[in-house]
Amino acid sequence: MHTSSDVQISLLADVKTSNIGSRSKIYSFAYIEEKVAIGADVIIHPHVSIYQGVVLGDGVEVFPGAVLGKEPKGAGALARTPTYDRFVKIGSRCSIGPNAVIYYDVLIGEDTLIGDGASIREQTRIGSRVVIGRYVTVNYNTTIGKRTKIMDHSWLAGNMIVGEEVFISGGVMTTNDNDIGKNGFNETDVKGPTIEDGSAVGANSTLLPKVVIGRNAIVGSGSIVTKDVSPGTLVMGSPARFVRSLQHKDTL
Amino acid sequence: MHTSSDVQISLLADVKTSNIGSRSKIYSFAYIEEKVAIGADVIIHPHVSIYQGVVLGDGVEVFPGAVLGKEPKGAGALARTPTYDRFVKIGSRCSIGPNAVIYYDVLIGEDTLIGDGASIREQTRIGSRVVIGRYVTVNYNTTIGKRTKIMDHSWLAGNMIVGEEVFISGGVMTTNDNDIGKNGFNETDVKGPTIEDGSAVGANSTLLPKVVIGRNAIVGSGSIVTKDVSPGTLVMGSPARFVRSLQHKDTL
Amino acid sequence: MHTSSDVQISLLADVKTSNIGSRSKIYSFAYIEEKVAIGADVIIHPHVSIYQGVVLGDGVEVFPGAVLGKEPKGAGALARTPTYDRFVKIGSRCSIGPNAVIYYDVLIGEDTLIGDGASIREQTRIGSRVVIGRYVTVNYNTTIGKRTKIMDHSWLAGNMIVGEEVFISGGVMTTNDNDIGKNGFNETDVKGPTIEDGSAVGANSTLLPKVVIGRNAIVGSGSIVTKDVSPGTLVMGSPARFVRSLQHKDTL
Repeated sequence: MHTSSDVQISLLADVKTSNIGSRSKIYSFAYIEEKVAIGADVIIHPHVSIYQGVVLGDGVEVFPGAVLGKEPKGAGALARTPTYDRFVKIGSRCSIGPNAVIYYDVLIGEDTLIGDGASIREQTRIGSRVVIGRYVTVNYNTTIGKRTKIMDHSWLAGNMIVGEEVFISGGVMTTNDNDIGKNGFNETDVKGPTIEDGSAVGANSTLLPKVVIGRNAIVGSGSIVTKDVSPGTLVMGSPARFVRSLQHKDTL
Repeated sequence: MHTSSDVQISLLADVKTSNIGSRSKIYSFAYIEEKVAIGADVIIHPHVSIYQGVVLGDGVEVFPGAVLGKEPKGAGALARTPTYDRFVKIGSRCSIGPNAVIYYDVLIGEDTLIGDGASIREQTRIGSRVVIGRYVTVNYNTTIGKRTKIMDHSWLAGNMIVGEEVFISGGVMTTNDNDIGKNGFNETDVKGPTIEDGSAVGANSTLLPKVVIGRNAIVGSGSIVTKDVSPGTLVMGSPARFVRSLQHKDTL
Repeated sequence: MHTSSDVQISLLADVKTSNIGSRSKIYSFAYIEEKVAIGADVIIHPHVSIYQGVVLGDGVEVFPGAVLGKEPKGAGALARTPTYDRFVKIGSRCSIGPNAVIYYDVLIGEDTLIGDGASIREQTRIGSRVVIGRYVTVNYNTTIGKRTKIMDHSWLAGNMIVGEEVFISGGVMTTNDNDIGKNGFNETDVKGPTIEDGSAVGANSTLLPKVVIGRNAIVGSGSIVTKDVSPGTLVMGSPARFVRSLQHKDTL
């Protein structure tokens, strides 16, 4: 595939790839490196940066200021040395919000919405029809299943698994380090929570490292979850305690 | 009004409108479409994107990376189909922080401060002399009265009303959906809290859907508000409980 | 020092300074004013804005969309009139994340990591080997000691001190105003918490104004800290209460 005659590229853009599908449009001041593959009907807004190794499916729209293909970098201060491969693959019809940051070594399915300023670290895999809210930060080595929704300002710590059709409300903090970062990075002892299929976590809740939120369980808003939550149960409080078992159509 | 002779526009900007008031300054790499109206004494910093239909009053300053006139867009995954008109109107002497995102169909009064990265969704109306803190996210169809202050990282869910002279501290999460997003979007059952004039909500508090925070009431920090709060009372805790009635000059 | 022959500057950048060290690289659409000093081996990515008075040490990397040297500006609505000097100094080998915003009058040590979108207000001093997480907001006149780590989404209120080797987890809110902003700015009565050396604050905790977290103390996740915490003790809950004294190697 090479740049079609019906592609619109602003004369004020800096586009080094020629691998651009039909009817795509690239605005002024977009920066796109060589070895980037752009599908058909893609829109790249102004001030977007796309580094080499990024692949965008058909119909993707990338809003102003988004950064695709950020290299993980630790300065001197980071406990952990990042490992990653130099690619990003974003499926068809995804929408990447303004100022969102997608690190290298990230796969995103189709029809997924990445909100304004959301930041997705390396080794993350996100399914199709997912909503990642505004300023959600996802740390390294995290898997998020299809049709899951994560609302604004939530933080997914590294090394964790979120299932399918999960709902995580706003301001939810997960943690992955029992030793509060004081002893450097120890791979075996750094693990975030597991949030199983169909479960829901209320706004401003906190999940401690390694807890498991069982299938179809619900964690009430503002809870502090310190131990595993059984499937199909409602817990709430600080620390979160069992309230009752849930019927099929229960709510937060 | 047409571009005055005393307007400064960088040769490296991409400016398609000629409707720019006296003494305004536009930096390099700003992107401004046709059908944009810019008042006098306006400053547009580098890397700002302004789409057609945006109107800026006199003395407005827009800091680097801000995006004015973002089209709401859902990818395949969004429950709700956004409705909006293609305009943004920002009153005189407002300051729009770096990387802030103002969606279409937003009105902002005069002398209002929009903090770094704040994101304001469609059908939102914000009064004059308001402070919206850094990374505050405001969802669709929300009204915010004059002289209200909302501190960093707070999240206003859609379909809600915030009165005048309200103080919302940092990390406050509001919710608008009792059914945790599982059954799609049902207009009648999706409503955020109402926060009446003169009330205050402490840091890291959570407000459940449809609760009313009465006039001049105070919600203590870290509270989970599950039911209406009477005017002029102090509540706190998880769930928030009545503590005492307030005198005229009470504090958090 | 003047721009060396081995400096790479994109023809599509707008660079007004000639004070650039050897082997530095400046990408397209970077905006750099006069009176900016850039060390050797510096990388400035696309869409970065650097205003006059900024000094970058050797080996600094500035990712896309970062803004260095933002002028504090209050619109009509801000209670406080900002005071500041027009400089920013960033030590060697720091990494400044995408869309981070560094206001004027900020000093940052060496080997410090500023995360994506972190926003650092005027009169802030940050030590060496510090990690400031993604979307952390630091308010004016705040000091952060060396080797301290502050995780994503936390908010440091103005006028506060954070010691050395402190760990602040995600979503931690600090407050600095007992009068919830209703009586304007009163310098003597606006003071944030003090977080002493070696202490740790769990995720989603809230610290009320003026509290002191003692040396090597630990605040459990989701706590509301309403009074001073003694050195070497563990507190938790809402309000936070003494749990036990800590041994040398205790954890959250």
